[in-house]
Amino acid sequence: MKKNLLIAQSGGPSAVINATLAGVIERAQMSGEIEKILGGIHGIKGVMEGNIVELDLYNTSRLGLLTHTPSSALGTCRLKLKNDPEEFKKITDTFKKHNIGYFVYIGGNDSMDTVMQLSKYCESQNMDVRVVGAPKTIDNDLEEMDHTPGFGSAAKYIAASVSEIFCDVMAYEVKTLTVVEIMGRNAGWLTAAAALSAANGGPAPHFIYLPEVAFSDEKFLRDVRSQHEKTSYALVVVSEGLKFANGKYVCESDNQTIDAFGHKALSGTAARLTQLGKAEIGCKVRPIEFSLLQRCAAHIASATDVAEAKVLGSVSLSAALSGQTGVMSRILRKSSSPYRVEYSMVETSKVANNEKRVPVEWLNAEQNHVNDKMLEYLFPLIQGESQISFKNGVPEYFPAIR
Amino acid sequence: MKKNLLIAQSGGPSAVINATLAGVIERAQMSGEIEKILGGIHGIKGVMEGNIVELDLYNTSRLGLLTHTPSSALGTCRLKLKNDPEEFKKITDTFKKHNIGYFVYIGGNDSMDTVMQLSKYCESQNMDVRVVGAPKTIDNDLEEMDHTPGFGSAAKYIAASVSEIFCDVMAYEVKTLTVVEIMGRNAGWLTAAAALSAANGGPAPHFIYLPEVAFSDEKFLRDVRSQHEKTSYALVVVSEGLKFANGKYVCESDNQTIDAFGHKALSGTAARLTQLGKAEIGCKVRPIEFSLLQRCAAHIASATDVAEAKVLGSVSLSAALSGQTGVMSRILRKSSSPYRVEYSMVETSKVANNEKRVPVEWLNAEQNHVNDKMLEYLFPLIQGESQISFKNGVPEYFPAIR
Repeated sequence: MKKNLLIAQSGGPSAVINATLAGVIERAQMSGEIEKILGGIHGIKGVMEGNIVELDLYNTSRLGLLTHTPSSALGTCRLKLKNDPEEFKKITDTFKKHNIGYFVYIGGNDSMDTVMQLSKYCESQNMDVRVVGAPKTIDNDLEEMDHTPGFGSAAKYIAASVSEIFCDVMAYEVKTLTVVEIMGRNAGWLTAAAALSAANGGPAPHFIYLPEVAFSDEKFLRDVRSQHEKTSYALVVVSEGLKFANGKYVCESDNQTIDAFGHKALSGTAARLTQLGKAEIGCKVRPIEFSLLQRCAAHIASATDVAEAKVLGSVSLSAALSGQTGVMSRILRKSSSPYRVEYSMVETSKVANNEKRVPVEWLNAEQNHVNDKMLEYLFPLIQGESQISFKNGVPEYFPAIR
Repeated sequence: MKKNLLIAQSGGPSAVINATLAGVIERAQMSGEIEKILGGIHGIKGVMEGNIVELDLYNTSRLGLLTHTPSSALGTCRLKLKNDPEEFKKITDTFKKHNIGYFVYIGGNDSMDTVMQLSKYCESQNMDVRVVGAPKTIDNDLEEMDHTPGFGSAAKYIAASVSEIFCDVMAYEVKTLTVVEIMGRNAGWLTAAAALSAANGGPAPHFIYLPEVAFSDEKFLRDVRSQHEKTSYALVVVSEGLKFANGKYVCESDNQTIDAFGHKALSGTAARLTQLGKAEIGCKVRPIEFSLLQRCAAHIASATDVAEAKVLGSVSLSAALSGQTGVMSRILRKSSSPYRVEYSMVETSKVANNEKRVPVEWLNAEQNHVNDKMLEYLFPLIQGESQISFKNGVPEYFPAIR
């Protein structure tokens, strides 16, 4: 008797996590080996709670719409398994109740820890459920692979938006400091992607500060002042996770912002650095946080990223169908120019709970910008424009599945 | 002997102010009545200082690129004439030196004051210079016209981005409050445009607060709490210019944020309202400011807006060529469905220094959202996707002219 497939999504949303979901569904539909395709709502939490829906999406145009819809259509959670028998029992009860033979979990490194633990548990219980992962994170911080799906689209959004912000700030004659803050608490991949704004010969950010390098207020002010000797505007891109040499986050500095209600508030890194610039340099300042926009702007997704994300979903299910468990799909790069990749599976134990950070050899000598190695790495990942459908003047997206 | 044409841009940038510039240039090239096309760098300030360049753009593809490039390619200024003979003399000296017969100034209501004053001065001096304006402002706050170019593209960016932010916030199960802050100090047109996120039947922001209505913390908290009874997420869109009934800006409330350097800092309206929500409701909060992105995101400009902006440039120069001065071009709406407009000229004296605000009859009874009248007005303005050219994965834009 054929088994059913269960799919769930986890962690922070991205522009292409639904493309991976669509890839799994499409592969399942073609396989002939799967009875029903089910979705777990709000990640492993929903699986535990038995919150399961049937994904009745056997229509190509619906799958196409899902492919281009940002964020997690099935909902997400931020739950890390505690290696607790109670939790495993709840999950496997759901598996039994719904006759699950395959579970595909799409997420980042916490989610791969779930895949690892759960596959071991199922094996230990002699349960015939193949548990596999598919990668997802805009942060690009997963080990054992060239890059993660979601990253390229966020990078493209950032590169395009920085190029447009440049058009804006260059229009003024007065001295200004604009600081753009990018997501990525520990890894500076996305922040580095701002350098791609110069892909057509336009200006690159004057300085790029990554969390991999200890931040210094003095160096920052020196850098900005040196730029102001050349242009009236200085445009700086920073990671939200910048830290001083003493390990403190820049956004949690001692002189912390007190919010309107008397509580200590985490003001953003960009906010603090523009306050510093205003106090010390006296120019007009503007902090800009890309916030959620960088991870959900599917209208400017990278076509390369969307296509790869979909393939990864398909590859993950193929592995499960061929009997693998405890593994996840990944992309490896064969060459950058021409851009060639290959897909394979990797043990989740090698990926879970690790973070891949930017190598300092990909930064310039002053460590306040990236060098050509980084640009060569980034460039292929933002190529191609995703063909989303606009209707009534706004993008048309797949409704949330609940 | 043929005279020369001078063009300059002023005020805050928009996604289509260069489309108007391109429209003036194209009309000038076709006219056969103009010797040289010149640009004043950084608006009327550059004209005063004699900072003039020749716009040697007689190539259709270059004009096409300029048309789709955001912000002011000629640079901008925020200078309001003081009706000072000294200033007029500097400007008219530049006119004489460069044999200017036509001056087209593209800008908002301060710029139209410049057009008005300058045209009167030229007439008083019997100088044969026709001074005309072309409208521009994302704020949509100019009187005597249906809408302003730049508004539709900013509205489209806002509608699309809010629809994408919805995809993101709906993925979570935990209780959240997201507050999106939109530009428009005194007029809520752009803030209202967030309602267009529902154009395809997706969700609209739960509440929209405009500066035309006195803001109340209590009402805001009541609204958010009522939404939390229905969904775990509440998404609210606010104008940066919200004021309490006592006339104080919400972002300048008494319990003001003290920045990291001990100064009173204007924290944003969204930042303050999320702090309030966190303190009173205790949910997860996220303030999002669209900041410069909403006025320079040409990659998602409204094709309707781009086309209209270009025509307005052409219409302005046509008026100058036919002998008019002290006037500006405008759009009037004949019907919304089907969308039909006509172009005409209007005295700048009727436009300068006025602000058109949102009529309260276009809000719902509770004044915390818009009604169908507003939607009918907004809808046509965001239709059509601008065909910008991507190269190397990022939009290709015209370099700044200096």
